[in-house]
Amino acid sequence: MTTQQLFEQIQLKKSFLCVGLDVDLTKIPQHLLVLEDPIFEFNKAIIDATHDLAVSYKPNTAFYEAYGIKGWISLQKTINYINENYPDLFTIADAKRGDIGNTSSMYAKAFFEDLNFDSVTVAPYMGKDSVEPFLAFENKHTILLALTSNTGAFDFQTLQSKSEKLLEAELYQQVLETSKNWTNSKNLMYVVGATKATYFSEIRKIVPDSFLLVPGVGAQGGNLAEVCAHGMNDQVGLLINSSRAIIYASNDFDFAVKARAEALKMQQEMQVILDAKFSN
Amino acid sequence: MTTQQLFEQIQLKKSFLCVGLDVDLTKIPQHLLVLEDPIFEFNKAIIDATHDLAVSYKPNTAFYEAYGIKGWISLQKTINYINENYPDLFTIADAKRGDIGNTSSMYAKAFFEDLNFDSVTVAPYMGKDSVEPFLAFENKHTILLALTSNTGAFDFQTLQSKSEKLLEAELYQQVLETSKNWTNSKNLMYVVGATKATYFSEIRKIVPDSFLLVPGVGAQGGNLAEVCAHGMNDQVGLLINSSRAIIYASNDFDFAVKARAEALKMQQEMQVILDAKFSN
Repeated sequence: MTTQQLFEQIQLKKSFLCVGLDVDLTKIPQHLLVLEDPIFEFNKAIIDATHDLAVSYKPNTAFYEAYGIKGWISLQKTINYINENYPDLFTIADAKRGDIGNTSSMYAKAFFEDLNFDSVTVAPYMGKDSVEPFLAFENKHTILLALTSNTGAFDFQTLQSKSEKLLEAELYQQVLETSKNWTNSKNLMYVVGATKATYFSEIRKIVPDSFLLVPGVGAQGGNLAEVCAHGMNDQVGLLINSSRAIIYASNDFDFAVKARAEALKMQQEMQVILDAKFSN
Repeated sequence: MTTQQLFEQIQLKKSFLCVGLDVDLTKIPQHLLVLEDPIFEFNKAIIDATHDLAVSYKPNTAFYEAYGIKGWISLQKTINYINENYPDLFTIADAKRGDIGNTSSMYAKAFFEDLNFDSVTVAPYMGKDSVEPFLAFENKHTILLALTSNTGAFDFQTLQSKSEKLLEAELYQQVLETSKNWTNSKNLMYVVGATKATYFSEIRKIVPDSFLLVPGVGAQGGNLAEVCAHGMNDQVGLLINSSRAIIYASNDFDFAVKARAEALKMQQEMQVILDAKFSN
């Protein structure tokens, strides 16, 4: 999927919601546990109930790997289900991978070819040759961690640091600036946590056009309107992720209905913002 | 396995060699491809041929994920084979994971419980709460990326940066220094690439006692004697990784024999160094 197609989906659905599929067997409705593949059945029900309100789904691979081969099968069935039934959805493997060149190529192959995700999250610490193998895939997107939504973000990401290009900047700004020079950088998006909405203005000075994947609205305290005020661009340029608030809205038989209700609330907030921004 | 037990194995085998199991189906002997699980059969032959010359084995997860569920099964069979047949080997999942707290817990569960590795490599970019869930496991080890062996290491890891503790230091030094204050930091080891042997003196000032996992000797140009001169401590404190030079020494029927010959060469070099260091 191209970013233009993603923008079209956002306009069509009046939503830039991404639903995080972080499925923990201890938190899903217990009646699903008797089924052969509870994780997949849970995802399927959530996706079926919310697909018209969201433009993107993001399984976090940790939650699947924790269940070993069975979990990996659930992940594969989930992405196949989306690709077969809802090909207009933008899929994100939240995997936070990154390794030396030839090894990153193997990860890129795993997520872009074997599993056929539209995008994968990647950690920047190992630099250019750890990210470029992901960028080489046409119409696939590499979502680089810039400023994350957790408290540990302030350990290193905001350290004052010097490079030839930026003499006085925080590390995440160096990451944004440096990454723009990598081959096929047009295929980059960035993770920027919502917990620091004012950072978005600084970030937009460096990457005005890129899509930003934004965790941390809701459960982690971020505010949607503020993030949009500072971070939205002419192609919207934002995917707001919500995981627990939607998928664990209920852990009873009504879980899919309640998940839809939560997703609808977010979609309606987004529609107001989009209508105000794009009404002219 | 404790670091004391690892040190004892090093003394016993007169080796601090780690064999990297980065198995690429296009590079292994073609006669293995007719078998049901070529990756596992290759690993089994390599391990059987070299287990008395190495103290550690390190599958890089990328090479397994690239083959989807089949690859994940090969990984599981490989770690089970080591744990059942050679329980004195120190096993490393080279996974370079890291995510927000509850998600890192799922990765830790995947690698320490489900797969039962002794250790896992973790990326530091997301800070304290992304690493501490790994550190919570007793007698399991978290190998944090500090200074990697690839060219991209110089993009961010060596940027001059300021923290409260270190006013003027490179980012990897900030990572080393900061991580010492995390809960259960005694369970930390670090990845330090061999391509910059002189860096080891600086690193030993910050983490004198920690084990360092050292890629980049051989294929990537690092020199074993130099690394040891600058980086070895009283418990040796080094695991030198070699992947391609050993496992792809031949891609013919003699691949295991040739792999053993390469591993023996490295073990003999190591024995000379250990004898010189610990002879008194």
